Amino acid sequence: MENKRTEISDLGEFGLIDRISQNFTSVNNETELGIGDDAAVLNSLGSRIIVTSDMLLEGVHFDLSFTPLQHLGYKAVAVNVSDVAAMNAIPKQITVNLGLSNRFSVEAVDEFYKGVKAACDNYKVDLIGGDTTSSMSGLVISVTAIGMVGQDKITKRSGAKEKDVICVTGDLGAAFIGLQILEREKQVFMANPDMQPQLDKYDYIVQRQLKPEARMGVVHELAELDIVPSSMIDISDGLASELLHLSRQSGMGMKIYEDKLPIDKQTYDTAVELGIDPTTAALNGGEDYELLFTVSMDDMEKLKKHADIHFIGYVQSSDKGNIMATKGGNEVEVTAQGWSHFKKP
Amino acid sequence: MENKRTEISDLGEFGLIDRISQNFTSVNNETELGIGDDAAVLNSLGSRIIVTSDMLLEGVHFDLSFTPLQHLGYKAVAVNVSDVAAMNAIPKQITVNLGLSNRFSVEAVDEFYKGVKAACDNYKVDLIGGDTTSSMSGLVISVTAIGMVGQDKITKRSGAKEKDVICVTGDLGAAFIGLQILEREKQVFMANPDMQPQLDKYDYIVQRQLKPEARMGVVHELAELDIVPSSMIDISDGLASELLHLSRQSGMGMKIYEDKLPIDKQTYDTAVELGIDPTTAALNGGEDYELLFTVSMDDMEKLKKHADIHFIGYVQSSDKGNIMATKGGNEVEVTAQGWSHFKKP
Repeated sequence: MENKRTEISDLGEFGLIDRISQNFTSVNNETELGIGDDAAVLNSLGSRIIVTSDMLLEGVHFDLSFTPLQHLGYKAVAVNVSDVAAMNAIPKQITVNLGLSNRFSVEAVDEFYKGVKAACDNYKVDLIGGDTTSSMSGLVISVTAIGMVGQDKITKRSGAKEKDVICVTGDLGAAFIGLQILEREKQVFMANPDMQPQLDKYDYIVQRQLKPEARMGVVHELAELDIVPSSMIDISDGLASELLHLSRQSGMGMKIYEDKLPIDKQTYDTAVELGIDPTTAALNGGEDYELLFTVSMDDMEKLKKHADIHFIGYVQSSDKGNIMATKGGNEVEVTAQGWSHFKKP
Repeated sequence: MENKRTEISDLGEFGLIDRISQNFTSVNNETELGIGDDAAVLNSLGSRIIVTSDMLLEGVHFDLSFTPLQHLGYKAVAVNVSDVAAMNAIPKQITVNLGLSNRFSVEAVDEFYKGVKAACDNYKVDLIGGDTTSSMSGLVISVTAIGMVGQDKITKRSGAKEKDVICVTGDLGAAFIGLQILEREKQVFMANPDMQPQLDKYDYIVQRQLKPEARMGVVHELAELDIVPSSMIDISDGLASELLHLSRQSGMGMKIYEDKLPIDKQTYDTAVELGIDPTTAALNGGEDYELLFTVSMDDMEKLKKHADIHFIGYVQSSDKGNIMATKGGNEVEVTAQGWSHFKKP
């Protein structure tokens, strides 16, 4: 990447599209026509079609001083696949729109698409189109993902019922704590460029921030166990915010237990090192891209042996509110502190 | 709009989504679940699904000093609907991703979505989702449109056959000349803020730039006449560039006639006033969002009485190249000057 710099203007439109599309071949029967026309053509083969779209903006969602472009390409796909997973659907296609300022070379675009390609391979998704244009100000990424699912398997946010068990996959708070470490090391580096960032002992949490994974494995496992969750959402803004979405859209209250929240040891230790309460990181950290879902008591039995699915509480009537029982034996209201992008100036 | 300014941070995520979504109700049977979950749910009812996505960035694709936000919302939808039309398909759903800097108020967002709503009503499209986030730098818009079409009606860029007639709808070059006028008046205004812009005599071409329409009417008319074009594309980068797309993807040459190019009188007169060759504006201007398509000789007969479809040439073998016969009796090669967004710095 450092050896060669080709201007995007040297390639031209045809050249850039060809360069991108030559690495992508469709793997899904549902993709009838991919890149290269006014639009792509899909065939749902009778399934329902899931559509979701997310935007990632430089300076808001990522900092290129510590985010490799390849990871960013991977993440842009993964966060959209995560939304498809949250509908209990299988991702099939994506479009990637990219706005690039002059400081990005063709080699930089290649790096980004290497990450897109790795994610497409991993999640078995076809890149079917997109728009590449110049930007006056930094890198702009907008991805739309399309998935398919049988009508009887669609899992919305609105189906949680009283006494259902609240489940969460993996662990929480790691991506947020990883970001704090990356920002700390950036400050150290800016103060003294001879200092090399010390990231070895933070490898897991840094990886969780830079290259998150969508929990497609869990979607497939639920299908194998013949479980359709009563409600589901992916955790992008923090557990608290997502719990409140399920609560609001299902018209139910939620009760969770602090001591059941899954927090990785590295997340915990680093949070303590930084003076951040690990529970706060888990509740409000965001960008975990784990799945939060509710299942009936019967289905819970089938999930008991799953190492990566944790039962953190249960659904209660709405008049009981959204409550966390703390380790100290108190009950506190769950409030959302996610979605900080529109903080007051 | 000038009377009240509400900060987006005052509304919060739920508030903003509610405010936007309350004005949008789905009209298509194919939309099973719209805004408000991780993703939307569609049912193609056996049709093929068309997906297209486009990004509009402030400072590159639009200048807010002379672009009303309402028109911009309309245009963001129309240009994507135009891509669906270019596949001979019917638009059904859109997602709108929006990046907003602090200088945009809730009222500004309302204005933008008024335009989105007007376009949704006009084109009978359902807004099914999207992502609204803050931006460090200006307004960022990314729209994905989904359409449906019977498999036997899909019209790609690649089907043009020798002796097919090349057709274009409406007229060309107006949006480009309209932009030149808007930019000229902006310079006048910046030099002397007491000067009011003189736009009355340029109403048509200014409208073509600020509020373009997708040619859905023509798609419906072709269906009524039982015509499936052999190839089709919408004119976003200028006639020349789009002709070359059809040529390249069909493996054919194209012959067009300068004196057949449809140019509105206001476009022609204003081009002359500005010292721009009207033919150059028609060939390379861009943003017309007319449809360029090829039909067999038999189908041409059915279109002869259509006031808004013009026959500008025919398809020839690829060895004859892409040629324009000029008014002066010469033959010149058609070359693309569109896609200027990546001009060298």
